[in-house]
Amino acid sequence: MASAEIIAIGSELLTPDRTDTNSLWLTRELNDIGIDVMLKTIVGDDGSRLEEAVRDALKRADIVITTGGLGPTADDITREFTAKAVGRELVYHDNIEAHLRERFKAWGREMPEINKRQAYVIDGARVLPNPNGSAVGMLYQTEGKFLVVLPGPPRENQPMFTDHVLPLLRAISGEVFVSRRLLRVAGMGESAVDEIAAPIYKKYDNVETSILFTKVEIEIHIAAKANTYAEADMIAQRLTNELQAAIGKAVFSTNGDTMEVVIGKILTERGETLSVAESCTGGLIGRRVTEVPGSSSYFMEGAITYSNEAKTRALGVDPGIIHSHGAVSPECAEAMAAGMKAKAGTDHAISVTGIAGPDGGSPAKPVGTVFIGYSGPAGTRSFKIILPGDRYLIRWRASQAALEYLRRQLMKG
Amino acid sequence: MASAEIIAIGSELLTPDRTDTNSLWLTRELNDIGIDVMLKTIVGDDGSRLEEAVRDALKRADIVITTGGLGPTADDITREFTAKAVGRELVYHDNIEAHLRERFKAWGREMPEINKRQAYVIDGARVLPNPNGSAVGMLYQTEGKFLVVLPGPPRENQPMFTDHVLPLLRAISGEVFVSRRLLRVAGMGESAVDEIAAPIYKKYDNVETSILFTKVEIEIHIAAKANTYAEADMIAQRLTNELQAAIGKAVFSTNGDTMEVVIGKILTERGETLSVAESCTGGLIGRRVTEVPGSSSYFMEGAITYSNEAKTRALGVDPGIIHSHGAVSPECAEAMAAGMKAKAGTDHAISVTGIAGPDGGSPAKPVGTVFIGYSGPAGTRSFKIILPGDRYLIRWRASQAALEYLRRQLMKG
Repeated sequence: MASAEIIAIGSELLTPDRTDTNSLWLTRELNDIGIDVMLKTIVGDDGSRLEEAVRDALKRADIVITTGGLGPTADDITREFTAKAVGRELVYHDNIEAHLRERFKAWGREMPEINKRQAYVIDGARVLPNPNGSAVGMLYQTEGKFLVVLPGPPRENQPMFTDHVLPLLRAISGEVFVSRRLLRVAGMGESAVDEIAAPIYKKYDNVETSILFTKVEIEIHIAAKANTYAEADMIAQRLTNELQAAIGKAVFSTNGDTMEVVIGKILTERGETLSVAESCTGGLIGRRVTEVPGSSSYFMEGAITYSNEAKTRALGVDPGIIHSHGAVSPECAEAMAAGMKAKAGTDHAISVTGIAGPDGGSPAKPVGTVFIGYSGPAGTRSFKIILPGDRYLIRWRASQAALEYLRRQLMKG
Repeated sequence: MASAEIIAIGSELLTPDRTDTNSLWLTRELNDIGIDVMLKTIVGDDGSRLEEAVRDALKRADIVITTGGLGPTADDITREFTAKAVGRELVYHDNIEAHLRERFKAWGREMPEINKRQAYVIDGARVLPNPNGSAVGMLYQTEGKFLVVLPGPPRENQPMFTDHVLPLLRAISGEVFVSRRLLRVAGMGESAVDEIAAPIYKKYDNVETSILFTKVEIEIHIAAKANTYAEADMIAQRLTNELQAAIGKAVFSTNGDTMEVVIGKILTERGETLSVAESCTGGLIGRRVTEVPGSSSYFMEGAITYSNEAKTRALGVDPGIIHSHGAVSPECAEAMAAGMKAKAGTDHAISVTGIAGPDGGSPAKPVGTVFIGYSGPAGTRSFKIILPGDRYLIRWRASQAALEYLRRQLMKG
């Protein structure tokens, strides 16, 4: 299988405000024909570093793609130092200059003399025409490897890559097809998931699997490769099924759907409705549920009852419960959920009450203590969870715990 | 002047979906103490490539910083291959394991055995504690150069860098001082802001100014450089004052405070309270207001009244208003705000009703039509705004428009 490296060139990419994004598009294009990107480098307008980066990359990878640094100014050093990296001279192409002069004439301008620099090409390289700009690209073959030199602007490098580079790479990469899956897992830690998943995915040689820990969940990314798409897809599905069977109900999505989309689909399918009573999450659950287009068909109402008085007035929580057990208690969480369900007349209601911090914790109820309540056709219940992290993470994780609790209850129904 | 390279580690950073962003924050921190970033590398979970990247970087740069790959799984190869790159062994630290076991115990969990991997450290390296996660960092000095090994999550690597790495690097870097300001502007477009701001900031040679357009506001970033901090700070303040005078009230923050923090400070200072009634924003305003620690002292309650029935029952909106004018109307926005204020008994209430899309628009009320209501000591009022963008952006911009409307009303009071 062929491998690639990408080198992004330009001092602006080494500032705090800009980063290379060309490589994301290129990576997808390469992955789709079975070529892996093994390394990315970002270099400034510094000739010797660029030359070294290109030379090193050509030692490791079959295909090296550079983006940027092909403009007409003195800062644009890519032509000169990619040529040095492959030990060739730059040669002047009259026809490129003639073409450039014509382009400028068409815009009603005289070509500035510095644009002549853009008529130089690595000796022996194929010229890649640029209908959307003044910088031509280059494709240079050396010892069975490819150096592809592209301009920086996406609207210039993308059509150039698609029209002139991709067909050639497709021919050398062989017939490789990729099928992807994204599994999402709730309520488990990264290491717990990996302990179960690793023995399974490691049996698959032709699949790349990576496990990511986001602020609320674990993602398992699968990319299966084979000689036909059908075969790749079958392998991806088989691994997905194995992982799902081993990890169990905690896998809430195998097609990349988010938690709020998964819940929306269940409620829509059943024609059932939802309301939400939030304390420490302050609206985050409502916001997540209503992020889904069409959520107005199942989400009726939410109450953000931050003060105790609001819990009593808006949700009918008995002040005696708050007095005896506190607002952060299973009793209060259940009263909030039951009260919300009754007031809104929905099929299901969830509630959250907890201590997001940084203040408000105590030895008995430290920061991160959260009670989740649920009220539905089969009754009202609650559970306690202690969440790690700062205020931001505790709130996100509490919202996820509440939605996951709802999902589990819906699965029972 | 000292130079740095940054190496981001993780196969997910070589996929089409993710890119390294840690380096942007690190670059800013390094630039601020006069250290330039000369090259960035992104490597996957590939030991030999990582080892080579670290070794090459240490040849070129004074400071090499890696991020990521310090988790507990087999994919997390940074400990092993940074050690190889500097020719040292990994040594096991009992006290790190003991500390990890305690952390897990505090969360009510048993430490999985694979987390023991996180107790290994490069022989001779200084251990950098991580209060926000399980991976410790490392700082290794070799032949006058620094290798800094940080975890991937920004919440873990940023405090670690600030507390344990920056003071040391400051000592070896030169005497360059930077003073920054971040101005935030609401309710104006990027070009309108730049037309006013550019003639002002272009007069300052020793200041870098950049204008960024975020999903809800315009940010003006100022970085003034000088030989003393006092001088840099004076220049930054002078430019800030000039810009604020020229742009006017739309500048809601000159110290980086977000809109929700600015509003929280005004309410706290006055001892006044707030409630929120949301329709199309679905809890986003409540979530933003309660993101601020201590918001429970002024934020009492919110209602997410998605259905018409909820608007009537929870907020007392007259069904006749919805019948005659529709739920997306100035009349309904005002009734929601007035009802919320009365029910919650707060000093101020804001409301939002609108069409976030993708469905629900009409020729008279296209997607993006939003009414913002306000009710306070001086009465109840509303205004209409038509917001561009998709569902996600319309909701964010509606939340910002509501909070900015509240801020303007508070400034009058």
